[in-house]
Amino acid sequence: MENKVFELLAEKKYTRLRSLLAEMNPADIAQILNESPSKEQLPVIYRILPKALASEVFAYLDSDMQQLIIETFSDAELREVLDELFLDDTVDIIDEMPATVAKRILKQTDAATRKKINQLLAYPDDSAGSIMTTEYIDLKRDMTVDSAFEKIRRVGENAEDIYTCYVIDKSRRLLGYVTVKDLLLNGRDDIIGDIMEENIIFATTLEDKEEVADKFQKYDLTVLPVVDKEDRLVGIVTVDDAIDVLQEEATEDIEKMAAISPLEKSYLKTDTFSIFKARIPWLMLLMLSSTITGAIISSFEARLTVFPALIAFIPMLMGTAGNSGSQSSVTVIRGLSLGEIEFRDIFKVLWKELRVGIIASIALAVVNFGKMWLVDYWLLGTFDSGKQLAEITVVCITLLFTVIAAKLIGSVLPILAKKIGFDPAVMASPLITTAVDAISLVIYFAVAMLLLEF
Amino acid sequence: MENKVFELLAEKKYTRLRSLLAEMNPADIAQILNESPSKEQLPVIYRILPKALASEVFAYLDSDMQQLIIETFSDAELREVLDELFLDDTVDIIDEMPATVAKRILKQTDAATRKKINQLLAYPDDSAGSIMTTEYIDLKRDMTVDSAFEKIRRVGENAEDIYTCYVIDKSRRLLGYVTVKDLLLNGRDDIIGDIMEENIIFATTLEDKEEVADKFQKYDLTVLPVVDKEDRLVGIVTVDDAIDVLQEEATEDIEKMAAISPLEKSYLKTDTFSIFKARIPWLMLLMLSSTITGAIISSFEARLTVFPALIAFIPMLMGTAGNSGSQSSVTVIRGLSLGEIEFRDIFKVLWKELRVGIIASIALAVVNFGKMWLVDYWLLGTFDSGKQLAEITVVCITLLFTVIAAKLIGSVLPILAKKIGFDPAVMASPLITTAVDAISLVIYFAVAMLLLEF
Repeated sequence: MENKVFELLAEKKYTRLRSLLAEMNPADIAQILNESPSKEQLPVIYRILPKALASEVFAYLDSDMQQLIIETFSDAELREVLDELFLDDTVDIIDEMPATVAKRILKQTDAATRKKINQLLAYPDDSAGSIMTTEYIDLKRDMTVDSAFEKIRRVGENAEDIYTCYVIDKSRRLLGYVTVKDLLLNGRDDIIGDIMEENIIFATTLEDKEEVADKFQKYDLTVLPVVDKEDRLVGIVTVDDAIDVLQEEATEDIEKMAAISPLEKSYLKTDTFSIFKARIPWLMLLMLSSTITGAIISSFEARLTVFPALIAFIPMLMGTAGNSGSQSSVTVIRGLSLGEIEFRDIFKVLWKELRVGIIASIALAVVNFGKMWLVDYWLLGTFDSGKQLAEITVVCITLLFTVIAAKLIGSVLPILAKKIGFDPAVMASPLITTAVDAISLVIYFAVAMLLLEF
Repeated sequence: MENKVFELLAEKKYTRLRSLLAEMNPADIAQILNESPSKEQLPVIYRILPKALASEVFAYLDSDMQQLIIETFSDAELREVLDELFLDDTVDIIDEMPATVAKRILKQTDAATRKKINQLLAYPDDSAGSIMTTEYIDLKRDMTVDSAFEKIRRVGENAEDIYTCYVIDKSRRLLGYVTVKDLLLNGRDDIIGDIMEENIIFATTLEDKEEVADKFQKYDLTVLPVVDKEDRLVGIVTVDDAIDVLQEEATEDIEKMAAISPLEKSYLKTDTFSIFKARIPWLMLLMLSSTITGAIISSFEARLTVFPALIAFIPMLMGTAGNSGSQSSVTVIRGLSLGEIEFRDIFKVLWKELRVGIIASIALAVVNFGKMWLVDYWLLGTFDSGKQLAEITVVCITLLFTVIAAKLIGSVLPILAKKIGFDPAVMASPLITTAVDAISLVIYFAVAMLLLEF
């Protein structure tokens, strides 16, 4: 498809290009434009699109593409696109544009719309208000089904969701909702107030948008009303925006677990320096925190030169402990995120990790004993002091304790971090790494001192 | 809420409990039952629920709770619940039950339903067929809007989504769709064939369910038709199931990045041994792969005893390289998952990581130089051979090269893994860890040999 588009463009076969594009889905056209290598051609392709399709494509474009196209627009063209966009999309676009472009967009909207846009722009970035739209259908409780249908037919063209209509009183307080299904399955003269559902799931404007998205998943919603502090209906959130929030949330969790500050845009659209800034703080912190492990090793330096074979197993012990700990912490962090694990489960989690840790550490120690005997002793000749059996035993016993300790630390720290109000994914990773690294070395040298003349 | 429910239950105030529950959302009731500590009370609470609500609650219950309740059901009660459930939910339940319970459920369904259930059960676990339902509304192209409404009113009660109706021909081939919005905004005598949209996004029964879920996100869908090999409409997937797939997918990616095989159920519902089995293979593999790092250290053992200060920095160097590599690999793996990064972007990614790696490694090396001078030399006295400056230089130069190498390996391996058909999240993690660990040691000792008499 993509090649065909650029081929027709190069050959200036605009009529055929227009009919090819008209058959395509707006999201697919936007993807071609977003990934297009030559930016000059964008406005050309965009202008070829039939008008209604052009506005739909516009909403799917990346913000840098949107800006590029807006800059080629006349005021009349800009107004046309804005008229077709849903208000939440307009707000998202303004939010991403440089001030001059944002001002130009606002100038092309009528006073009422501008007021609404400014209200939506004022909500904090991570709130329900920031992802809602004001284009919903509201009904009064004394309307009949027939008059409800009439209203839907009148205003439905511009509503983002017409299938759930909200029933409000004179001061716009949310009383309940009816679905178009309810309207279709009831008599034409039935009264909305009698058939509406009053038991309603809603969000408040300042609620965290991640909580809002979780409600969509928990209650299988496609749309959710948003009310202000006085319980007045001010907007709706639709499921497509909720999905975007859920995906962003998962990406952020993944980034935080890998010690990266979340990126604002997608990776390929983010400049080198922003990626650097997102990564360097944790790298720096983790590098400096390994002063602790360095100091522990230094203080045992003299003894290590007497048992040099023990040096070779430091990376394996720290690595296995680190992997064991991160398995536990990542599982628990995701569970906390999905609401599957809560603070009251802390002892259940500890008990489970203790048992998993015991079985896993025994399995690892046994396999490691065999491997050290066969590979390190016979094959590689790592041991040459005549103390090989004792040294192998030290390594395996260390493994037993460190794996269990790492699993307990890895599982409990995220839960505690969340309890005291920190982000478990952010707080847990550096703390757990540092703690597990230090503890595994201390256990190693302690076991060595007990069993060897270390 | 939860406490109130168990309080009323303990006091046997069943009438008040019933009216309390009747006001609640089925997902909330299911959550209370799922998290209830005493399993004996479940059937009691469940029986108190008004019938229509009971079936809704049932669909939200965890499978062990469903089994518990089914076992207390008479055949008549079971039939009642099954009649209310959507077919995809019934299939999910049967899929999770032991064979005897599954058989009992199938026995309570009529022959036609049983046939449909068996067809749905036959689709592979990760296919579009496995998450679809057959309860959709289909129309013929020569119907009028009025007759379409009539059909919706007739069969709508049992359809999972009534707002998108699919237009099919005599052999059930999918021709297009009309939404209820289209029906409302067109004249009553208009012909479906004239107003239907033919440009349609669909899935095929055997398509990977993750690809299906990605389509919901890309095209902002709430429902998606599924066709078989002959283009015949066989079912629909609704957005609530797509959200579940997206969330599962993110959880699986997170688990794989942390070297865990994905769990079937939620963490707290998974038994100790299953968690052990999901974690031990990678722990074992990574432990054994550190034989490589061990062997590298062993072979430099004699020289390390001459420069014992260098031992203390091994964990820091390997740790910083590991963190740098995992930052890159995790970013790239998530980008691949979200479709933001593709194979053709490999050089863009490498170039970006090279630049980020250069800036980051210089920043780390400079800070580390200062820190080693101040903390390790002056404060901790790690160096005592009179070669401190040379040794510090060795560590910092190693840092420069390892961070860049780690970022390049971490970013390119997942892309290559995906290209040759492996799961980037699974393949990348152990390979990257092993490669980065080994490479950082080799660089360390190589730099030491060049700059010191090592």
